[in-house]
Amino acid sequence: MSALDDYPYRRVLGTRWADNDIYGHVNNVQYYALFDTLINAYLIKEGGLDIHGGPVIGICAESHCHYHASLAFPDDVIGALRVGKLGRSSVTYELALATADDAPLAATGSFTHVFVDSATRRPTPIEGRMRDALERLIPA
Amino acid sequence: MSALDDYPYRRVLGTRWADNDIYGHVNNVQYYALFDTLINAYLIKEGGLDIHGGPVIGICAESHCHYHASLAFPDDVIGALRVGKLGRSSVTYELALATADDAPLAATGSFTHVFVDSATRRPTPIEGRMRDALERLIPA
Amino acid sequence: MSALDDYPYRRVLGTRWADNDIYGHVNNVQYYALFDTLINAYLIKEGGLDIHGGPVIGICAESHCHYHASLAFPDDVIGALRVGKLGRSSVTYELALATADDAPLAATGSFTHVFVDSATRRPTPIEGRMRDALERLIPA
Amino acid sequence: MSALDDYPYRRVLGTRWADNDIYGHVNNVQYYALFDTLINAYLIKEGGLDIHGGPVIGICAESHCHYHASLAFPDDVIGALRVGKLGRSSVTYELALATADDAPLAATGSFTHVFVDSATRRPTPIEGRMRDALERLIPA
Repeated sequence: MSALDDYPYRRVLGTRWADNDIYGHVNNVQYYALFDTLINAYLIKEGGLDIHGGPVIGICAESHCHYHASLAFPDDVIGALRVGKLGRSSVTYELALATADDAPLAATGSFTHVFVDSATRRPTPIEGRMRDALERLIPA
Repeated sequence: MSALDDYPYRRVLGTRWADNDIYGHVNNVQYYALFDTLINAYLIKEGGLDIHGGPVIGICAESHCHYHASLAFPDDVIGALRVGKLGRSSVTYELALATADDAPLAATGSFTHVFVDSATRRPTPIEGRMRDALERLIPA
Repeated sequence: MSALDDYPYRRVLGTRWADNDIYGHVNNVQYYALFDTLINAYLIKEGGLDIHGGPVIGICAESHCHYHASLAFPDDVIGALRVGKLGRSSVTYELALATADDAPLAATGSFTHVFVDSATRRPTPIEGRMRDALERLIPA
Repeated sequence: MSALDDYPYRRVLGTRWADNDIYGHVNNVQYYALFDTLINAYLIKEGGLDIHGGPVIGICAESHCHYHASLAFPDDVIGALRVGKLGRSSVTYELALATADDAPLAATGSFTHVFVDSATRRPTPIEGRMRDALERLIPA
């Protein structure tokens, strides 16, 4: 059993040379870049989000990360995603990063998206294929 | 009176072309890059932190950001910093970003550093010039 | 006299914490981020480029950088820009970076933009205010 | 036969959310981040480069990129690497990026590393395992 088992969506994320900062490990800011990448890849591939001119976009309202251990280029990272709370027009994701399936979690975090109309930027209900995709990420 | 008045250290931070994401505003991840820059600039200039081989480094243990309004390149951003909690070997900063002195805050956040020995990576007390610099950031 | 005198547009660009890579200096990739920022700030402010839905966008066709000396956070950098060649729908900029007005150049580079229709992505002539702005950057 | 066949080392590189700029495609700067990542991953894994305190580091002296077609998140990119010129203490890589094995090249570029002593930053000969690794990247 792995600490990642509680996260229904998992994906290998590559690190980059410049992720390592002067102290030799992945800079704290880049953890959020991995979160952002994991979430949006899921929304596009599973939820049908059209980032090139689609009618709805996700705006980040809040994010948080708790750092438990270091990551370093050139090692790959496993990103893990679940949905903690699904509201009418907003969703709070819970995320984890680890260096391997059976490794302790290197970081845990959260990220809240408000879905808005891309023109008016006013909240819009999460419906249809997107809602289905997000519901699949709620742990049993 | 400005919402930034409660933050003793303020500095203009430039935005970059690529900060804007596909939705036309500064990506949520870059807010943390601005936090990181503001904090470390202060630690180096006021606290005497030597990032090139010094005996002590600051490790990020936790960070958080609440997004209130958008920012966009090419506009400058005002970064504001204060200390919320100063412990024996750790410090929690509170940060704010705004587009102008009299603008509402675009973001508020927090960031916790644990100071560690750069070789052993074990916590080390915050003392001397660094402690003085951090104490000056505790609001009256 | 300064090596920057040959560049009509100059601007101070801030560095960021994560610009420094594991070797302690600004990563080579970030020099291009500074180029990109300098160019687009000029196009927006002086040439009237509307990056939020305007009819014309600049596409990078080629870029180059020659690295002469290191840069490092938290130091500011002076970015300098001139136009080397102005064609019907393309422009080649020449750029330089230095740590101070009287310092030797830390980097010199070039960057070619093709202006295209934002919908069709086909080349479009550089005219009016934008052409005027670019002509002002051709050294006497 | 593929345009990538001339490059002995190839690796899939993931894109990230923020690679896409306001125009909806991977920003030109990020092509260099992919180059940098590809080169250093090879140097570490095949050449034995120790980036954490090793005696030798690679300094970028020059880089160039010619952009042929766009890339976009969330698509993966194939990075391809060969050695164009191997000198006593310097090496010039030639790189290519493509969206698929049988796709036309999206970009071609070059990157010159000078290997230096990490303490004195003076050029040092490329020898042993590193030289062997680089020689394997010279096309037949």
